[in-house]
Amino acid sequence: MLADMQNGPLLVSHLLEHAARVYPQQRIISRTVQGERHEYTYQQAHQRSKQLAMALQDLGVRRGDVVATLAWNTYRHFECWYGISGMGAILHTINPRLFAEQLSYIVNHAADSYIITDLTFVPLLEALAPQLKTVKGYIVMCAADEMPGAKLPNMLCYETLLAAQSGDYNWPEFEENSACSLCYTSGTTGNPKGVLYSHRSSVLHSFAVCARSGMGLDASETVLPIVPMFHANAWGLVYACAMAGCRIVLPGPHLDGASICSLINDEQVDFTAAVPTVWSMLLAYMESSGKRIDCLQSVIIGGSAVPAAMIESFEQKYGVEVWQAWGMTELSPLGSINKPLRGQRDLPYAEQLAIKVKQGRAVFGVEMKIVGPDNRALPHDGKAFGRLMVRGPWVVERYFRATEPATDCDGWFDTGDVATIDALGNMQITDRSKDVIKSGGEWISSIDLENAAVGHTDIREAAVIGMYHPKWDERPLLIVVLREPQKPFNKASLQAYLETKVAKWWLPDAIEVVTEIPHTATGKINKVALREQFAERVKGGQLIT
Amino acid sequence: MLADMQNGPLLVSHLLEHAARVYPQQRIISRTVQGERHEYTYQQAHQRSKQLAMALQDLGVRRGDVVATLAWNTYRHFECWYGISGMGAILHTINPRLFAEQLSYIVNHAADSYIITDLTFVPLLEALAPQLKTVKGYIVMCAADEMPGAKLPNMLCYETLLAAQSGDYNWPEFEENSACSLCYTSGTTGNPKGVLYSHRSSVLHSFAVCARSGMGLDASETVLPIVPMFHANAWGLVYACAMAGCRIVLPGPHLDGASICSLINDEQVDFTAAVPTVWSMLLAYMESSGKRIDCLQSVIIGGSAVPAAMIESFEQKYGVEVWQAWGMTELSPLGSINKPLRGQRDLPYAEQLAIKVKQGRAVFGVEMKIVGPDNRALPHDGKAFGRLMVRGPWVVERYFRATEPATDCDGWFDTGDVATIDALGNMQITDRSKDVIKSGGEWISSIDLENAAVGHTDIREAAVIGMYHPKWDERPLLIVVLREPQKPFNKASLQAYLETKVAKWWLPDAIEVVTEIPHTATGKINKVALREQFAERVKGGQLIT
Repeated sequence: MLADMQNGPLLVSHLLEHAARVYPQQRIISRTVQGERHEYTYQQAHQRSKQLAMALQDLGVRRGDVVATLAWNTYRHFECWYGISGMGAILHTINPRLFAEQLSYIVNHAADSYIITDLTFVPLLEALAPQLKTVKGYIVMCAADEMPGAKLPNMLCYETLLAAQSGDYNWPEFEENSACSLCYTSGTTGNPKGVLYSHRSSVLHSFAVCARSGMGLDASETVLPIVPMFHANAWGLVYACAMAGCRIVLPGPHLDGASICSLINDEQVDFTAAVPTVWSMLLAYMESSGKRIDCLQSVIIGGSAVPAAMIESFEQKYGVEVWQAWGMTELSPLGSINKPLRGQRDLPYAEQLAIKVKQGRAVFGVEMKIVGPDNRALPHDGKAFGRLMVRGPWVVERYFRATEPATDCDGWFDTGDVATIDALGNMQITDRSKDVIKSGGEWISSIDLENAAVGHTDIREAAVIGMYHPKWDERPLLIVVLREPQKPFNKASLQAYLETKVAKWWLPDAIEVVTEIPHTATGKINKVALREQFAERVKGGQLIT
Repeated sequence: MLADMQNGPLLVSHLLEHAARVYPQQRIISRTVQGERHEYTYQQAHQRSKQLAMALQDLGVRRGDVVATLAWNTYRHFECWYGISGMGAILHTINPRLFAEQLSYIVNHAADSYIITDLTFVPLLEALAPQLKTVKGYIVMCAADEMPGAKLPNMLCYETLLAAQSGDYNWPEFEENSACSLCYTSGTTGNPKGVLYSHRSSVLHSFAVCARSGMGLDASETVLPIVPMFHANAWGLVYACAMAGCRIVLPGPHLDGASICSLINDEQVDFTAAVPTVWSMLLAYMESSGKRIDCLQSVIIGGSAVPAAMIESFEQKYGVEVWQAWGMTELSPLGSINKPLRGQRDLPYAEQLAIKVKQGRAVFGVEMKIVGPDNRALPHDGKAFGRLMVRGPWVVERYFRATEPATDCDGWFDTGDVATIDALGNMQITDRSKDVIKSGGEWISSIDLENAAVGHTDIREAAVIGMYHPKWDERPLLIVVLREPQKPFNKASLQAYLETKVAKWWLPDAIEVVTEIPHTATGKINKVALREQFAERVKGGQLIT
C-alpha cells in the first residue's frame, strides 16, 4: 500500500531557496580572485543564482546540457553551483590541477557547452580552446572593466550577463534522479572517470553532512570550506551550508598558511575543512610566526591519511578538535567520519589519538563492509583487513558514459581501498588494494610502512612499492626523501628504527634515497610513476639490501 | 538526463540495521511496565525485531497489513516499530488516552489485523474487543508466566512468539513510498483522522531530526524520549536515535516528576523531549525535593506553547538549555525548532527569552508561509499574522482513506494555526485559526490573552473564547481557574493587570471563574466543550462586563 505523504522531488535549488527564506540576512563572505573582500547575503546569492539561470537560458542552455566551471571558491562559483543545477543543467566542476591532456579529455567527454572561468585560468583555456570541440563560449567571472584581452572564442562577461536579467525566475521542478553535477576522478592510470550525481543523491548527502554525527553544520557557525569546489564537491559543503544556514567564508585562490591563518581570525571561523597538505602549511606558518587560531573550534581533515602528529598539534597546541573523515568522488564524497563517542574525551590523550588516526564510522546512508579474496565479509575486529566495499544512495552506480556498472551484482562498489573495521565501528584504511604488498600470501600495508618511516627524524617523505621476489612473490621497497639531503644518512639506522614500529616480516628488503617523490594532480604519491622509475626491481631485477 | 548514482529505496529497516552494524554495543535501556530495568544492545534489538517480523509472518501478516500497538515506551515497543514496518506491514500506534468510542473507531477504520499491547491496556481491550471487527488476535508484551487471565479472543504471548523464531531474516526491499506507519490525530471535532507515513517520509524526517540544526542527536549522547511513541511518533526519536546511534533510555509508564528525575540521574541522560505538562511535574518535584538534574544538557519542549517561566527555570536554575519545537502529527511531526543563532547566548537573558518563546525556524524540508484572508503571503516581520501553511516531503498529502487531498491546489497544507514569522525566520503561533477572535475585522490571539492571564499570581489556568458582539462580531471571553479557589478574587484587579500586558482593544469583555477547564485526550484546552458550556454567550446572550 502506498502512503499518503507529499512526494515532491528532492532538488538542490530547494537548499538555497530554504537558506534565502529562513536565513535571509545570513552572510556569504569571499576573498575574490583580485584579493578583495566581498560580502553579501543568502538572499542576494539566491537572487543572483536565478539571474545566472536566466542568462544561461538566453544563451541556449537547456535542461541536461553540461556547463563547466574552472574556478576557485568564491561567491560567483557558489552562484554557478545553484544557477546551473537549479535550472536543470549539469554543473561540471573542472579540477584545474589536471594535466592539459586530461583537461581537454574531460571537457570533450563531458560535452561541456559553456565554461565559466576565473580570470586565473584564462591563459590555460587559451592554450586548450583549439582542442575543446563542444564549447560554445567562455564566461569570465569578472566585471566588464576587468575583462581580459584574451583570444578565447565567444568570450562573455559574467557580470554583464547577470546585469541583463531580472532574477524574476521560478526554479523548475523535475524528477529528483535527474543529473545535477559531474566530477571527474583523477586516477593515476587511464583516463579520468566521471561521476554524474543526481539531485536526490546531492540532497541526501547534504543531510548526512549536516547530521550532528556527520560534520554537524549549524546556523550559529561560520564555515570556511578550504577544500576546493572542484575537488570532490568541496566535501558537500556548498550544499550543506545552505541547508544548515551557516555563515560561509570562501577563501578564493590563496590557500597558503599565512592567508588561511588571517582569514580564520579576520572572519572568526568556527569550522573548516581541507586536506593534510593545507594543514601542514598552516601549522608550519603558525609555528614560525607564533600566530594562533583561537576562534576555530573544529576541523575536518580528509583526502589522505592524517598523521598523528598533525592531530596532536591541532588539539593539544591550538585547542582545535580534529575530525578525520574519509570519502571519495564516487561517494559524493562522504563515507565515514571520526567523531568522539561517550567517554572518549576522558581517556588519556595517547588512547584518544590511537582512535583518532582511524577514518571513523560509516555515516547513515553508506553501508560498508570489508571482504577477503573470496569476497566473504571479514569480522569487525580491528585486525582483519580486506577490500573496502560500499553501497548507498550517494554512491556511484556507473561511471559517466560507461556501459558497465561500477558495482558488483549485489550493488557494492569496490573503493579500491584495503581497510580494517573495529568493534566500535571505526574503519581504518591500511592501503590502496593495488598498492598492498602481497608477500607469501599475506598482505603488507604500504601506507603503514610509509607512516612508520616518516616517524624517523631524518625522513621527510616515504613511499613503499612492491618489488618482485622469487620466493615471496613481492617484498617492500622503501623509497625516501631526506629532510637534510646534504647530511650523511645511514640506512641501517632507519631499518633499526622500523624494527621497533612494524612486524619483522614487514621490514623493507631495500631502501632507496631519492631527491623527490612524484605526485599526482591531487597531491597523492604517484606509485605508477615510481613503479616505472624502479621498473627493474618491481619486475624482478637483483635485490640490493 | 538521469544520473548514474545508486538508487535504492529509503526504508526504516535500514536505520536499525545501520545502528546494529556501526554501533553494535550501544545500549537501549528500559523501565518495563513491571518496573524493572532492562538493558540490551542495538544488535540484540535488531535480532529480536527480525524475530518479531518472522512471528508476524507466521501469523499470516502480509505486506500492507496493519498491526497496531497500544504500549508505553519500552524496548518491546521499539522492536514493534522496526519489526512491523521493516517486514512491510503498517505500524499503527494507538493513543490509549483516546475515548473508548474513538479507540474502536480508529481500530476499525485502520482495519488493524493484530494489536500488540502492554499488560496495562489489557482491561481496556477486554471492554473494546467486541466492537473491534478486523482484529484477529491480541499479542501481550510479556513473558509466558506473566500472561494475564483476561478473556481476549486469540490472546498470544509476545515472548513465546519470539522464542519460536531464529531471527535469521533479511529485511525485504520495496518501493520507498510504501506505507510504513499510521497515526491518528485526536481532533476536538469529528472522528480522528489518520496520517499514513511512508518509509521515504520517515527516513527523510529522521535526517531532519538528526541535523545539528534539528534536534542534533549524536552517538556520544544518551537520549530519553519521554514523549510517547503513540503521540506523534515520539517526535521521530525512535528512528532518529538509531540513525545517530544514540544510547536510548525508554521510560516505561511512569512519567511523574519523581520517576523522571531519578531516571535522568540514574541513567545520566544528556537530552530528552516532552510536552510542557511533563516538565511542570518535573520542575514542581525538583522544587519541593531540592533534587537536581545536572547531567542533562538540553531539552526539547513542544506540543503546546512553552511558558517563559518554564524556559527560565530550566535554563537559569538547572542549567538545561531549552529548545522549543513545533510540529503536528500531519508533519511526522517536526516543523520548526528554536535553536540559538550566533551571538544569541551573549544577549541579556530577557532578550534571549523573548526569542526562545517562539516556535523557531523551519527545518530544511518544511516550507512555511503565513497567508492572510486573501491567501496572499504575508511579510516575515514578526508582526503580520496569518494562517500557517506548510509543504514538504514529510507533510501529509491526504488523510488515510480520504477521497479529497488535505492540501490546496499548490500543495500547501493548512496547519490550522495562526502565526507570525520574524526577520530571523522564527515562527510564533499566535492562535489556532478556529480560536482566533475576529473583532471588528481585526484578529485577537486567544493564546496571547491566555498567556497574559496566567502571568497573574491568582490564576492557575486560563482559556479565551470568542463571544458574540452585535457591533464587533466577536469579543474575548476569559475563563479562569484560580490557584486558591477559597481566597477572595477580584476580577477588576485581573483586568487592570491585563491592561499592562495587551493592547486595550484586546481586553476581555467578560471574565468567568470556573473550578475546572475541560481538556482533550492529548491535554489541550477543549474549546469546543467550553463553547458548549458558554453557548449562550458565544451565540449572543447579554454581555456581562
